[in-house]
Amino acid sequence: MTPTSPTPSPTAALIIIGNEILSGRTQDTNARHLAERLGRAGIRLREIRVVPDETEAIVAAVNALRPRVDHVFTTGGIGPTHDDITAAALATAFGVPLIRHPDAVAILTDHYGDALTEARLKMAETPEGAALIDNPVSAAPGFRMGNVHVLAGVPAIMRAMLESLLPGLNGGPPLLSRSVTAPAREGELAAPLAAIQARWPRADLGSYPWARGGRIGTTLVVRGTDAAMLDSVIAEVAALLRAQGHDPEIGERSGGDQSS
Amino acid sequence: MTPTSPTPSPTAALIIIGNEILSGRTQDTNARHLAERLGRAGIRLREIRVVPDETEAIVAAVNALRPRVDHVFTTGGIGPTHDDITAAALATAFGVPLIRHPDAVAILTDHYGDALTEARLKMAETPEGAALIDNPVSAAPGFRMGNVHVLAGVPAIMRAMLESLLPGLNGGPPLLSRSVTAPAREGELAAPLAAIQARWPRADLGSYPWARGGRIGTTLVVRGTDAAMLDSVIAEVAALLRAQGHDPEIGERSGGDQSS
Repeated sequence: MTPTSPTPSPTAALIIIGNEILSGRTQDTNARHLAERLGRAGIRLREIRVVPDETEAIVAAVNALRPRVDHVFTTGGIGPTHDDITAAALATAFGVPLIRHPDAVAILTDHYGDALTEARLKMAETPEGAALIDNPVSAAPGFRMGNVHVLAGVPAIMRAMLESLLPGLNGGPPLLSRSVTAPAREGELAAPLAAIQARWPRADLGSYPWARGGRIGTTLVVRGTDAAMLDSVIAEVAALLRAQGHDPEIGERSGGDQSS
Repeated sequence: MTPTSPTPSPTAALIIIGNEILSGRTQDTNARHLAERLGRAGIRLREIRVVPDETEAIVAAVNALRPRVDHVFTTGGIGPTHDDITAAALATAFGVPLIRHPDAVAILTDHYGDALTEARLKMAETPEGAALIDNPVSAAPGFRMGNVHVLAGVPAIMRAMLESLLPGLNGGPPLLSRSVTAPAREGELAAPLAAIQARWPRADLGSYPWARGGRIGTTLVVRGTDAAMLDSVIAEVAALLRAQGHDPEIGERSGGDQSS
């Protein structure tokens, strides 16, 4: 039976703009949320970059990634202070003027009333031609410019903006995963695992060693969009583990689980 | 008084090789650890990239970053299984053959004895010309090729390898930070904060809004290598907060704290 060629999943990249991540002060959690949420929407995250709050670095990352994936997301740098330079950097990246978006001015005027300072009006700035992304949490909108979606860095706001925009994106079939765990050592599984991967070229079979509580073992994870194929692959992996004397524990059947 | 020009800090970039991060399955913690640890060693992390377990993606990231920073670190992909392709990708990136490093073979032979399988010998492969990095946890070494330091992905092993190699790196004065927090709104601080930043061009002043337990506020963080300068900047920020009627809480005085 010749396998039919599946429609390739749309692809994405994430640019995290934030000195606080690069200094180690803050643990980023946006990347994992975005990865998992995009996977359920059938969009494959291909690369993540963390860059400093510097125009040149942001412009370089945006212009390197936007031709290479279907969707680029950015997080961070869209507030009112001097270190919030994402909108201006996007205007530079696209070679268009930075403007005050009239709809964003209206949203901020409605939200802040008499407290709408000049600093807050900075949050109405977008590159010319951008479309706003709704912020149901704190009003100040994100925006889309070309295939680049500019989101807040505060996780609750980033997540709300992502939910605002996802229905408008072209997704694909959800990216599914299956896993199996056993107290097996990678070095004794490697050759038969490679053979299983070779038999199932459309599956992505990953091997992750672990050590906890004095025990060591390996978790095998298979990913793809075809549920029946993933079940077949994981059955082969479980059979391999049993043949080596282990009692494999079948893990999640999902688009992305929360274990580490 | 003319400020003396400080010696610029050495710079670094991190390449995380891992489909499990891009799928959202695993929360990366190596980046934050490396960032914080390098900061204490006086090395400034300039960029982080997460790339898939694919030769072309790894080669592109390595060759893009190694001319631009003093030190590149990679994590992940150095085990015995089919998805561990970092060593081969590094050989491609440097245009040299992939060899079995004799010292690594000796280490693995000593560690595994009769259980040294062909798959495990894969963990002795390095690009020709590489120098080994000690792995005190599980024997299989990392390696340095040019200015690229290739580390394990398992956090305990990555951390141990990093401690092995840090004494041999040229660092700089530690990167310090000070912070102050108040229930202040960014939009009301933005203009005077920008003025403070402009007065202290060698400090990096970041503004991070937060919302928790129904309260909102802002944390201001200043980073740099000159402790007296940081104290002066944070005193100005605290005075600004007091002038706006807040009771600022002075935070950590360190090279990188663990709050988020």
